Amino acid sequence: MKTRIVLMLLGISLVSSCKNTSPSSEGTTETTPKKVEVSERKIIDLSHTYSDETVYWVTAKEFRLDTVFEGQTDKGYYYSAYNFSTAEHGGTHIDAPIHFAEKGQTVDEIPLEKLMGSAIKIDVSNNAFNNPDYLITIDDLKAWEAKEKTPIPDGSIVLLQTGFSKYYPNKVKYMGTDERGEIAVKKLHFPGLSPEAAKWLVEQRTINAIGIDTPSIDYGQSEYFKSHVILLSKDIPAFENLTNLDQLPNRGFEVIALPMKIQGGSGAPLRIVAVIK
Amino acid sequence: MKTRIVLMLLGISLVSSCKNTSPSSEGTTETTPKKVEVSERKIIDLSHTYSDETVYWVTAKEFRLDTVFEGQTDKGYYYSAYNFSTAEHGGTHIDAPIHFAEKGQTVDEIPLEKLMGSAIKIDVSNNAFNNPDYLITIDDLKAWEAKEKTPIPDGSIVLLQTGFSKYYPNKVKYMGTDERGEIAVKKLHFPGLSPEAAKWLVEQRTINAIGIDTPSIDYGQSEYFKSHVILLSKDIPAFENLTNLDQLPNRGFEVIALPMKIQGGSGAPLRIVAVIK
Repeated sequence: MKTRIVLMLLGISLVSSCKNTSPSSEGTTETTPKKVEVSERKIIDLSHTYSDETVYWVTAKEFRLDTVFEGQTDKGYYYSAYNFSTAEHGGTHIDAPIHFAEKGQTVDEIPLEKLMGSAIKIDVSNNAFNNPDYLITIDDLKAWEAKEKTPIPDGSIVLLQTGFSKYYPNKVKYMGTDERGEIAVKKLHFPGLSPEAAKWLVEQRTINAIGIDTPSIDYGQSEYFKSHVILLSKDIPAFENLTNLDQLPNRGFEVIALPMKIQGGSGAPLRIVAVIK
Repeated sequence: MKTRIVLMLLGISLVSSCKNTSPSSEGTTETTPKKVEVSERKIIDLSHTYSDETVYWVTAKEFRLDTVFEGQTDKGYYYSAYNFSTAEHGGTHIDAPIHFAEKGQTVDEIPLEKLMGSAIKIDVSNNAFNNPDYLITIDDLKAWEAKEKTPIPDGSIVLLQTGFSKYYPNKVKYMGTDERGEIAVKKLHFPGLSPEAAKWLVEQRTINAIGIDTPSIDYGQSEYFKSHVILLSKDIPAFENLTNLDQLPNRGFEVIALPMKIQGGSGAPLRIVAVIK
């Protein structure tokens, strides 16, 4: 989904609201006819599809789609329907705070305001792409701030681009192994956010949510999932297995991340899009 | 989710874009300092949660959440995770065109532009609320147009409010029966869109998507699901089991409807929100 759209979403509100606030007809003589403003928005889908190829944690139940019916019915109309089963945490999904924080929000309790709003992208792919054990550092975050000449804005959704989504769904390249089960855990290799950088983000900045284009916000070799604990303990949800981050600017876009609303869920499949102004 | 939010989503873009297009500094003397405009947005969640109580079609596999782990790990951190299984079509969900149209789009193929944009609400609850077999008529649609003094705008997402979400999840009141299986199909009673009105919408107007606060866009007593066939054959997806429509105005709001991205799916769980300007 990368097409230019016209008069969509933000665009429409823009037109009507600007009309209301425009002073053009107050105190000046209007010499040109009013024109309808058309604003262009680009919607980018940051979500992988769910299928047999969807990448899951090596110990997690994978996605399965079962056919209920597919074809012409005896009443003369076509009909198709399926059932599916999955772990909450697989493919493009959200970690709700309670995934690693006992008193944290469940996925249905996360305020929508945290999941919809202004976002930034921090591209560490030059450092991470050839190092599947790369840990994103405080310096990586500060480098974004220096380049953009601003601290990470309060309330941002922060997306971390390692470049690894390029490998998806090749499990060996994307996460270090295509083996399954407990024995494969030690073979996981992919970049993540260092606990030091996670701590810096929650203590020195005020962010609404975080996302990454690898299977986990902690790197593959993590044993204690400290970045998860640090972020989720502060009710900052994490989006994992994102894609298409290379199509985003460093800032100046919105993210809308809407998880399946599972009551009491520790996470859920997530449909996440970016809207570029 | 009904809180007022400030500088969210549409708000932020509005400020910057209005600055660019405002003629206030062109050809006039500016006497007042520029001020930052703060716009308030209200986000309304139109989605029911998934739980043991979620309403499904009487023949469909219901939602089930299984605990994988919940508690302190031997490494000292808290952890919880679940698996789940469900029919695609249950709770607040989307019908993809292929659900009733053999050549229609699967759920992952629906363009995001159809799922995000300007919306209207047509409130038929006065007619439907005490008549669980009510069929929404062409006259109901025309009554909205007469009242609002405009045809249904091109590209609208059309939400139909019958008032029945008030009964959710009481299955007897919401859909006529709490029995399960084929034998219960004939006992289904809830309002829907008449095939005539569906035909009028696809032939006389140009809408992007449609939604309703009952289990199905066809009414409970439907045998041939004609409104489904008419709408889905034109690649107009349908949102079912919506809630909180009573909190929406008749127009002047946006809908963002993001389904789980199931490859080849005939539908999917849907998280759908409205943003009121």
